[in-house]
Amino acid sequence: MSWNTFGRVFRFTTWGESHGPALGVVVDGCPPGIALSEIDIQPYLDARKPGQSKYTTQRREADEVRILSGVFEGRTTGTPISLMIENTDQRSKDYSEVAKAYRPGHADYTYDAKYGFRDYRGGGRSSARETAARVAAGAIARLVIPEVSITAWVEQIGDVALDYARFDRDAIRNNPFFCPDPETVTRWEDLVDSARKSGSSLGALVTAHAEGVPAGWGAPIYAKLDSELAAAMMTINATKGVEIGDGFAAVTNTGETNADPMRPGADGGVEFQANHAGGIAGGISTGQPVTCRVAFKPTSSILTPVDTITSEGEATQIQTKGRHDPCVGIRGVPVVEAMMALVLADQKLLHRAQCG
Amino acid sequence: MSWNTFGRVFRFTTWGESHGPALGVVVDGCPPGIALSEIDIQPYLDARKPGQSKYTTQRREADEVRILSGVFEGRTTGTPISLMIENTDQRSKDYSEVAKAYRPGHADYTYDAKYGFRDYRGGGRSSARETAARVAAGAIARLVIPEVSITAWVEQIGDVALDYARFDRDAIRNNPFFCPDPETVTRWEDLVDSARKSGSSLGALVTAHAEGVPAGWGAPIYAKLDSELAAAMMTINATKGVEIGDGFAAVTNTGETNADPMRPGADGGVEFQANHAGGIAGGISTGQPVTCRVAFKPTSSILTPVDTITSEGEATQIQTKGRHDPCVGIRGVPVVEAMMALVLADQKLLHRAQCG
Amino acid sequence: MSWNTFGRVFRFTTWGESHGPALGVVVDGCPPGIALSEIDIQPYLDARKPGQSKYTTQRREADEVRILSGVFEGRTTGTPISLMIENTDQRSKDYSEVAKAYRPGHADYTYDAKYGFRDYRGGGRSSARETAARVAAGAIARLVIPEVSITAWVEQIGDVALDYARFDRDAIRNNPFFCPDPETVTRWEDLVDSARKSGSSLGALVTAHAEGVPAGWGAPIYAKLDSELAAAMMTINATKGVEIGDGFAAVTNTGETNADPMRPGADGGVEFQANHAGGIAGGISTGQPVTCRVAFKPTSSILTPVDTITSEGEATQIQTKGRHDPCVGIRGVPVVEAMMALVLADQKLLHRAQCG
Amino acid sequence: MSWNTFGRVFRFTTWGESHGPALGVVVDGCPPGIALSEIDIQPYLDARKPGQSKYTTQRREADEVRILSGVFEGRTTGTPISLMIENTDQRSKDYSEVAKAYRPGHADYTYDAKYGFRDYRGGGRSSARETAARVAAGAIARLVIPEVSITAWVEQIGDVALDYARFDRDAIRNNPFFCPDPETVTRWEDLVDSARKSGSSLGALVTAHAEGVPAGWGAPIYAKLDSELAAAMMTINATKGVEIGDGFAAVTNTGETNADPMRPGADGGVEFQANHAGGIAGGISTGQPVTCRVAFKPTSSILTPVDTITSEGEATQIQTKGRHDPCVGIRGVPVVEAMMALVLADQKLLHRAQCG
Repeated sequence: MSWNTFGRVFRFTTWGESHGPALGVVVDGCPPGIALSEIDIQPYLDARKPGQSKYTTQRREADEVRILSGVFEGRTTGTPISLMIENTDQRSKDYSEVAKAYRPGHADYTYDAKYGFRDYRGGGRSSARETAARVAAGAIARLVIPEVSITAWVEQIGDVALDYARFDRDAIRNNPFFCPDPETVTRWEDLVDSARKSGSSLGALVTAHAEGVPAGWGAPIYAKLDSELAAAMMTINATKGVEIGDGFAAVTNTGETNADPMRPGADGGVEFQANHAGGIAGGISTGQPVTCRVAFKPTSSILTPVDTITSEGEATQIQTKGRHDPCVGIRGVPVVEAMMALVLADQKLLHRAQCG
Repeated sequence: MSWNTFGRVFRFTTWGESHGPALGVVVDGCPPGIALSEIDIQPYLDARKPGQSKYTTQRREADEVRILSGVFEGRTTGTPISLMIENTDQRSKDYSEVAKAYRPGHADYTYDAKYGFRDYRGGGRSSARETAARVAAGAIARLVIPEVSITAWVEQIGDVALDYARFDRDAIRNNPFFCPDPETVTRWEDLVDSARKSGSSLGALVTAHAEGVPAGWGAPIYAKLDSELAAAMMTINATKGVEIGDGFAAVTNTGETNADPMRPGADGGVEFQANHAGGIAGGISTGQPVTCRVAFKPTSSILTPVDTITSEGEATQIQTKGRHDPCVGIRGVPVVEAMMALVLADQKLLHRAQCG
Repeated sequence: MSWNTFGRVFRFTTWGESHGPALGVVVDGCPPGIALSEIDIQPYLDARKPGQSKYTTQRREADEVRILSGVFEGRTTGTPISLMIENTDQRSKDYSEVAKAYRPGHADYTYDAKYGFRDYRGGGRSSARETAARVAAGAIARLVIPEVSITAWVEQIGDVALDYARFDRDAIRNNPFFCPDPETVTRWEDLVDSARKSGSSLGALVTAHAEGVPAGWGAPIYAKLDSELAAAMMTINATKGVEIGDGFAAVTNTGETNADPMRPGADGGVEFQANHAGGIAGGISTGQPVTCRVAFKPTSSILTPVDTITSEGEATQIQTKGRHDPCVGIRGVPVVEAMMALVLADQKLLHRAQCG
Repeated sequence: MSWNTFGRVFRFTTWGESHGPALGVVVDGCPPGIALSEIDIQPYLDARKPGQSKYTTQRREADEVRILSGVFEGRTTGTPISLMIENTDQRSKDYSEVAKAYRPGHADYTYDAKYGFRDYRGGGRSSARETAARVAAGAIARLVIPEVSITAWVEQIGDVALDYARFDRDAIRNNPFFCPDPETVTRWEDLVDSARKSGSSLGALVTAHAEGVPAGWGAPIYAKLDSELAAAMMTINATKGVEIGDGFAAVTNTGETNADPMRPGADGGVEFQANHAGGIAGGISTGQPVTCRVAFKPTSSILTPVDTITSEGEATQIQTKGRHDPCVGIRGVPVVEAMMALVLADQKLLHRAQCG
């Protein structure tokens, strides 16, 4: 059972609503003795933070994280690590209309259908604000897997994809789009700004790579590494698809074009001649980079009025007036990275539980 | 923790290898009082069974299921239901070469990397034969959700997609491809037969629909319905991607084109004017059909020799000689259906646990 | 997997150390729509609170609970409920000696053996202060099972047992010992005060009854009601034994004297003529009161020097100087009640998950 | 969630009813590479087997175990190990009366109350026959913890306790009572035979010791070693109480008499001067022997008619005619040992998951 907990050995439980006093996460099962303080976590939260450019929501949150337990004299003790982030810029007044009518594409209707009522302020629990808690947990997960380096970026916004020929990893953190292709940045600026001004929104494709994952992580059959990654990514707000390696393109591969031939590696290991598999075979890591791609839908918050119903079931229209992301996938990048770190940390510990 | 167990309330645990004496599944948490006998399960196993046409592997298995516990006087008792299927057509002799060299794309190398050695006969535990156990469990899951009707089909093989204008649900069970478009069947026959003859293999795209799912199933944040479906599908052998609703196509939608507007329904309910979301919003079912699409890679078993290494790390080549599916995605259809049923049964019980 | 989480459907995760800034609990899986505010929780914390009489530790904590999430407009939303209690009276200076030497009977040595080091301030995570978080969670659990009434009391301190002939339920909350027999109170006052003055400590026996539990709760085989209760009670600090119904006395019963004969009840139900079983048969509630008894050892913190070793392995002696409970079992009463409520709430939801 | 699964890393799932065709267990999470065949398991099943003396039930079962998966070339592969035991001596005719009336003290009434109906043949799922599956799993668990030696014995039957001054470990397997005191055997022969002849039944006290458990196993707060042991023992049929170390006797200890002083050990380690704690402090093993004691009630199956009701709610009487154990605690010994092994194997793997 999980509800709001993810992970098997390295586990985290998030809590908090968009407009409550705070949100947080309890990280449990973390190995003891790892150096940890707030400055190991804060940079990741800062990367995810809203209000940093005109291309994201104008809500401004300090997103300052505080460690409340599980660390003593600068090191993890092996007991639960409680992290808290206070909400500071909630404007509940923006959401009065949402209380009465359902925003199509949002969780308004389904939360009511499930729970009988809902905290309508800013989407309540269904707000992407919950992902701040995961990003904080993900920062700890990274410390559990120092052998692994995880990088995610935006590959496409709307119908404008980057050009991998110009891929520059160092560029990713130097623009508001997490774009590794500086020339594409200009095009996305126009695209996203135009959507923002017209009150429209755009989808995005986010790619993540993990390098340094040794062969052997992943727990068949029902905790396979690819299955865990898929589950993790699909818990992120606005995601609609996930693929590993060639993913959907593998449908048109043949056995020959899809092969990842092997040959002896430099130091007695193995060298793969391709990575169509995305670093996973049979649900277990191969030692190659683990790659996955995540599809984000355009946020459903748009200025154009959309047909909907009130909570009493009457026809009406709704348009979004609050502060929103014109392309929510952009801020998905730090969340995708965090989820990948969280899955890999969990799988590392899970592997050593069974295989020593 | 799960290893070989899936589900939270309605849980199943599979066991068995390709060339062991038998394989099976224990279904736990099934509600009591449900009429159940082998004839409720056998038809689904028969649909998945190999050796039924020249388009699938020529291994011939009776796949006869036997209920060993959990049923009394024709009804489930609420105690664990143990199902067993004996293996009858194992030809271990085919796999002698595999013992020594790794088949790229298979789990040979990764199982060795993880566990130190492996049962090499027919892929051992990593064989798609394990899916027979899930299909059996899935048949029971369907009985737990009689309100839901699940159908899956092949949408594309290699680069040949069906034409939805000719969609005929009744056709699906009348051809060896689970194809709902009779005119496409002929083209796939040629395509798959050609791949089979040349010892090549093909990828496939499988689509699944669940109708009758009421609004409210799905457990945010970490047991969201879409997350559970993604995890479930990605545990199936040879899957590389999964998407819900518009999935990756949502990347190029705008907020306007991606909207699923709502209006009052006939009987006081709601009527959606589109289903880009695939029947899930905020991780909870909307009451619309739940739709998902799964990408299967071409099986890695091909006649063309592929570079690889021996278990001692020396360069060699390997080509497949045993019986294999030229397009493993075809037989994935009953498995995709089973996993969807298993996820939905679990979510139904999970929902009533919390919400009554 | 659980580490710091307990429960299957109604789950809670505690965090926090004795001398950290705060401690807390996240309650997950709580049904939506239940009226809840801090005043539903605070009285239970107040009952457990230290420093209320000279018979308990003199540490003074306000133990004010704050709800940080999961409640909207006074009702539970079905999302995680985060509760926080700030620590206010930590005197870390008392614990300098403990940093260097292991207190026998405490978790000092074993935490070091397990985790490599420990937060030695006030026992860190192993402090009974953690139980405040459970008591808070237990208050919510009670609201999930309004049909059940739970009462616990101290039955024996050291070798002085109460006399059940004088049992008065109303007396329990009117003395510092949770004693239902007013005449025994005086004897315990002398006994505990004497132990306190001499720097010694005493064990205690705590009994708990739950009335109103309907027949049918409990999930064989590995989530039986008695097994869950035993697990729950044995997680409480200083507990060494647990029994259900007649418990260890059943060893000397015969089948005849141990029988709970049944006869038709007033309203078509059943009436039991005895309750040796403690309201549980086959791991499932019978509809009778569920009874259990918990043994608390004397706290290991005593003024008499005890042989021990330093963390460097050298022989030394240690005596306790900080503030401690002369009889920790007394303050165990609200914790035992809370754990019983938490188990029963979980089992109620678990039962309806499977059986509707 | 668990239902019929126990364990966190080393997990097992049992299935099967007393009078079904077979019963079995799936062991999951077992480390790979462990030598295993049926002969490692069978002796433990033989020790538990009924019908071996006149002091246990006369049902005769071969209890032959068969490994169906998870082992290749004599070693565990890391995949699920499926074990099956066929039922051969079911006499369903003995239980016709039980179908109509509830046996007090058995699970007849509660299974009906929970599930709506029940498999009444031999108690169905609630039969102690289920414990054969655990004993089989326990044999594998022992192989996971070769450093640990586990021994259990009967300490008391009815009101006749053994004399520890005559304790002889080698005697345990040489009498039908698992009694380490040969002189007490004669007294128990008379006692149990007398109960058998008069159709009565007796309770028993079973003690278990585990030697060789290193310091550091146990996972605070909610997977403490003592909590796990208590849960495990209380899932065994007919158990009513469990205690660790001094257990209930600790209530009358003082802090001084309950202390386990420490001094430097021979090889740089620690030496404890007593073991009141039963080898567990703060939920973590201390390195001393882990000791626990389990109370078994007298079986409720007696020849004396007992008042009860029919499933239609009418008054009647019932007396037992089938084959039953006059003292079910005796055959509990191999089960207690198995559960201890299963808990310790799980905790060993759990410990290395977090702490390496």
